[in-house]
Amino acid sequence: MTEPPSALDAILPALCERLGPGNVLTAADDLEPFLVEARGLYRGRAGAVLRPADTAEVAFAVKTCAGAGVPVVAQGGNTGLVGGGVPFGGVVLSLARLTRVRGLDPVGATITVEAGAVLADVQAAAEAAGLLFPLSLAAEGSCRIGGNLATNAGGTNVLAYGNARDLVLGLEVVLADGRVWNGLKGLRKNNAGYDLKQLFVGSEGTLGIVTAAVLKLFPKPLARAVGFCGLPSPREALALFEALRARAGAGLTAFEVLPRFGLELVLRHIDGAVRPLAGSHHTYALVEFSTSRPGADPGAELEEALADALSGGLVEDATIGASEGRNAALWKLRETLPEAQSREGGSIKHDVSVPLSRLPDFLEQATAACEAAMPGLRVCAFGHFGDGNIHFNLSQPEGADKAAFLAEWERFNRIVHDIVAGMDGSIAAEHGVGLIKRDELAHYADPVALDLMRRVKAALDPNDILNPGKVVALSADPPRALP
Amino acid sequence: MTEPPSALDAILPALCERLGPGNVLTAADDLEPFLVEARGLYRGRAGAVLRPADTAEVAFAVKTCAGAGVPVVAQGGNTGLVGGGVPFGGVVLSLARLTRVRGLDPVGATITVEAGAVLADVQAAAEAAGLLFPLSLAAEGSCRIGGNLATNAGGTNVLAYGNARDLVLGLEVVLADGRVWNGLKGLRKNNAGYDLKQLFVGSEGTLGIVTAAVLKLFPKPLARAVGFCGLPSPREALALFEALRARAGAGLTAFEVLPRFGLELVLRHIDGAVRPLAGSHHTYALVEFSTSRPGADPGAELEEALADALSGGLVEDATIGASEGRNAALWKLRETLPEAQSREGGSIKHDVSVPLSRLPDFLEQATAACEAAMPGLRVCAFGHFGDGNIHFNLSQPEGADKAAFLAEWERFNRIVHDIVAGMDGSIAAEHGVGLIKRDELAHYADPVALDLMRRVKAALDPNDILNPGKVVALSADPPRALP
Repeated sequence: MTEPPSALDAILPALCERLGPGNVLTAADDLEPFLVEARGLYRGRAGAVLRPADTAEVAFAVKTCAGAGVPVVAQGGNTGLVGGGVPFGGVVLSLARLTRVRGLDPVGATITVEAGAVLADVQAAAEAAGLLFPLSLAAEGSCRIGGNLATNAGGTNVLAYGNARDLVLGLEVVLADGRVWNGLKGLRKNNAGYDLKQLFVGSEGTLGIVTAAVLKLFPKPLARAVGFCGLPSPREALALFEALRARAGAGLTAFEVLPRFGLELVLRHIDGAVRPLAGSHHTYALVEFSTSRPGADPGAELEEALADALSGGLVEDATIGASEGRNAALWKLRETLPEAQSREGGSIKHDVSVPLSRLPDFLEQATAACEAAMPGLRVCAFGHFGDGNIHFNLSQPEGADKAAFLAEWERFNRIVHDIVAGMDGSIAAEHGVGLIKRDELAHYADPVALDLMRRVKAALDPNDILNPGKVVALSADPPRALP
Repeated sequence: MTEPPSALDAILPALCERLGPGNVLTAADDLEPFLVEARGLYRGRAGAVLRPADTAEVAFAVKTCAGAGVPVVAQGGNTGLVGGGVPFGGVVLSLARLTRVRGLDPVGATITVEAGAVLADVQAAAEAAGLLFPLSLAAEGSCRIGGNLATNAGGTNVLAYGNARDLVLGLEVVLADGRVWNGLKGLRKNNAGYDLKQLFVGSEGTLGIVTAAVLKLFPKPLARAVGFCGLPSPREALALFEALRARAGAGLTAFEVLPRFGLELVLRHIDGAVRPLAGSHHTYALVEFSTSRPGADPGAELEEALADALSGGLVEDATIGASEGRNAALWKLRETLPEAQSREGGSIKHDVSVPLSRLPDFLEQATAACEAAMPGLRVCAFGHFGDGNIHFNLSQPEGADKAAFLAEWERFNRIVHDIVAGMDGSIAAEHGVGLIKRDELAHYADPVALDLMRRVKAALDPNDILNPGKVVALSADPPRALP
């Protein structure tokens, strides 16, 4: 991890010449935004930030760094939540200048974009062609598509459209030695050898640097209906999910859950948030029916479905947005919860998944275990219930010291992740491993799986140039995982 | 590829002891069905066929063979069409005894099955639980799910549900050294390190042997409507596809195409096949609307859509199945085409894909080029048009010598595959590479891609034990690719 200072110094002139001196940042102030991450958990260090303009310059930069043994940490929007983009030595390679939409094929329903394109801009380009690029998440205004693919991002549309991996048809990737793999095909079927793009999606910049991608587009939904339901517990939420899925099939495009405490936080901290239901409920579900078929009426279908759920006792109370403005306001109650929670003080976070049928058990057991471990701790478990993915977050007890609370992170990891592992779940459901879960992965993963991951890493990046110390550590002295 | 005879002889006693002597076949008659493949293009050779009963026995067998340097070729139903399961030395390892359904989770909508389960049995197990396992293809009565996953099978439901890869949540795999990787998780979101299952799906038994899988299930369609349309050319077929997709979205569950010559072959050779439309047309499209939503009426929607297409001049004539029996009869016209074509004589086959928008150009150019290359040759290009995947088959000229015609395979490969490559298509869309396209892949693939494939192969199977000489050849003397 610690390259001799001279190794980078020796290649800076060549990098400056090729990229232009303005695109090789070395001043401390210029480096600053690239060394810290969204939550402020880590502060990294780097000798330079490289800002190549295109794939050829990325390839040149990686080849030059690899030749000198200088580690390269790729960064997109630097919005990751697991420390995956934080450098610990070497250089940061920013994809922020590779922002072109290279093409859009309305017949094939594909878009070809460069890695640095902001997710919202990709969505907008699809929308302008009357199509949908469904990947959607909180950071979409600043995250970049290359980072979304490198981390196999999830978000709020996974139930209907899958994870980022499911949206990729082709990739262009700069490899650890600076060669370019051109796999930019827009095909729905291709079994011409191993499916190499799968290696790079979700590898968090440790196996190659995505520079461009061919993505799937979809017919744009023509109408949607959004409901907000109060329920007695997650058990009824699961039953409601089953009932809605049986009724709407693929038309059920969202099923998000938040707890009473979560809604209270939003109402307390978020300007303009309005209580959606008169009473108070243990559990809330935000549900959405969408359709891309002309003439269909998802509002009527959702109303009928929720009326049945009310009369069957699954749901205690429910409301359906009467307008797109009201739909957006209901979604905002869910989307602003992370922000509301951070305003409430320190939070220890777990991004986990379990098989859908185990979700109520998981929530019950993990809540009881965490509450028993620290009196006054407030569980805020919310998220993509329909995907089996819960952000099992813990807010500090009222009045507690934030730093002292966060120092307990490792203890709560063990409590929560043991329960997840016992249910054949995942300790890293949608945010990835990065740095913060690298040692957790090493603790919980099957040793055979870890060995396979290390073999793949060694095969594609034998000199450990790309984002070393993340996901799986090859070196004996990787950066410390927990903040 | 050629192990000394003694290497296998030395381990046969241990294999017999563990698997039982009845499950270590060595008599020529017993070996026979495992040495040839569906089309009769290849005849392989093997010292024994191993029939382990469970994952532990598969692991033992592979470990024992690997220790002795004996190659292992995994076989499921042996229905592959590219010679991928044909052994050239070593042993065949048949998964046919691993047939259990280990579990079905109706809430999570997953099924856990062993590799040797016949695809139709997996479909039936899902159906019995009121759910759908959508993978469907001609060989479903005898192909086995492990082979479907190892080859990333396609079939007739890809448009709506994706390829086999898209249907897999977790895998159990025996590695080249006999270790077992247990990745049998039934999660919709899991970013805990590299997504190892992606390595094995589509690797055709060269990187590991799939022994079990967790698969996605879906709500069962409640109703479908099937239409059969006559069109002036593939250009109108593409426009019809766009119109139906815009109208039905994900409800458009099939869009298959066959040419006039193809329909005539079916009417000539298949008992009970009835001409679906009064007149004769250049191109035919079989289209299907399905729904899993109670109360929806796909028949009425399809009728309206086809009426618009008729009045707009896209479609010359069309019929809609008035019953499930009639729907099945329309599907049979498409499904029996490969059989009808084989009864017509020799056929040189190409399984290719191009971007959807290039399909009409591809069909036009490739047809013209092949017809120019051999007078009297009859192009029979049909298949999964909506996936961009065409079986570009060439029937021998009437009265020609079959063997002499098939000897031209390599010449036509070059003609067809050059056009595919020029359109950024795939020369192996759904049947895989196996043996028959190994050298074609080496010819057309980006050298960087080939190098990556070889690195992955060497990382996971450094001694080239698993299905050597298939997909990518590591050794200097692999078996001959073309029959």
